[in-house]
Amino acid sequence: MLPFDIIALDADDTLWQNELFYKRTEAKFNELMGNGFDPKNVEEKLLETEARNIRLFGYGIKSFMLSMIETAIDLSDGSIPAQEIRQIIDFGREMLEQDVQLLPGVAETLPVLASQYRLMLITKGDLLDQESKLARSGLADYFAEVEIISDKDVAGYRRILQRHGLTPQRFLMVGNSLRSDILPVLEMGGSAVYIPFELAWAHEMADTPLAGQNGFYELKSISELPEFLQSIA
Amino acid sequence: MLPFDIIALDADDTLWQNELFYKRTEAKFNELMGNGFDPKNVEEKLLETEARNIRLFGYGIKSFMLSMIETAIDLSDGSIPAQEIRQIIDFGREMLEQDVQLLPGVAETLPVLASQYRLMLITKGDLLDQESKLARSGLADYFAEVEIISDKDVAGYRRILQRHGLTPQRFLMVGNSLRSDILPVLEMGGSAVYIPFELAWAHEMADTPLAGQNGFYELKSISELPEFLQSIA
Repeated sequence: MLPFDIIALDADDTLWQNELFYKRTEAKFNELMGNGFDPKNVEEKLLETEARNIRLFGYGIKSFMLSMIETAIDLSDGSIPAQEIRQIIDFGREMLEQDVQLLPGVAETLPVLASQYRLMLITKGDLLDQESKLARSGLADYFAEVEIISDKDVAGYRRILQRHGLTPQRFLMVGNSLRSDILPVLEMGGSAVYIPFELAWAHEMADTPLAGQNGFYELKSISELPEFLQSIA
Repeated sequence: MLPFDIIALDADDTLWQNELFYKRTEAKFNELMGNGFDPKNVEEKLLETEARNIRLFGYGIKSFMLSMIETAIDLSDGSIPAQEIRQIIDFGREMLEQDVQLLPGVAETLPVLASQYRLMLITKGDLLDQESKLARSGLADYFAEVEIISDKDVAGYRRILQRHGLTPQRFLMVGNSLRSDILPVLEMGGSAVYIPFELAWAHEMADTPLAGQNGFYELKSISELPEFLQSIA
């Protein structure tokens, strides 16, 4: 018998590039703000604005656009020209139209996984943007279920399991974010495969108390997933 | 036997006020733009910007905020002060924090419906905003299922029915929008109760070719729904 009824995968930075495009946009935003501002300050102020707005605006690119605009107005004491605010909106538009770039191994591994397991995509952020990325990724047919939720907390995962008649014991989540993909799933008694997005993070991870915890696994790449599943079957 | 396996209800302007807050914000936006601009032009330009942005930004308040900002920059030829753009963001923030105002009859009718039928909420727009409104509405416990989708087209309704193992013949949708709640549901062979939000619209409707079409019903108020359901049971 297979060890899981379904394998759920995160999308951003697990299946395709995401953070990269935020970083690139932040660099353009810094450049737009110009020489008068210390890039460190701009970055900190933007983070602060995003943190304040997340409760009301949620995750995603539109929220990021609004936070950049607010940060630009705050930092410039209201003197930023409207044309530069238009440029910020254009930065966001470019992000929304950005081609989907699959991470290494994804295109080869998804068909293998889907031939053995029911797959579910679980992601957070803008509904339309995530649906659009999935459609453009060419991966949509591999997923039996798609769940786009406003936040990946324990309550969110519990709702998904309930709605699909799944038990935590037979549920595996795969993702790159400890906070969103791994910790809440372990907390409710599920299994989770952590695939760090950056190699540097993997090194840090070796020391976390999660190593050895029941249901927690760590892989270097999504390509290792089929072999891992065979090993625990 | 009951005539439907589930009754699905739209949210904005079916259960609670929505358009009203957009109209109020549009009035504030017009006032902000000032005397130099003909309100008619401002309105037209805003509609035009929204229509252009909907494909990429989707529905909801954040999308509306970004379209107001773009409209203000366009109309002012880039001369609008950044502080006024901040005010536009604050308009949107107020909308997101606005108390949920139930429409007449909703609070009394939902418990009656829920005692006989499984209820589903089907709405479009910002994920977080819609979830937040449902939580604040006090109505969440009446709904067995909640579906927030990016657009209410035939494909969207088909996916919902498939996911819940429902047939169009046993599916009833209730809502105020012909385009989003009624036409796609009739097209896939379901039943739909149209409850116009404005009395004026109801008059216009009397002449549409929908009257008499299979599965199409029209009521003046959600309060009439329980009696209507008994009449066709």
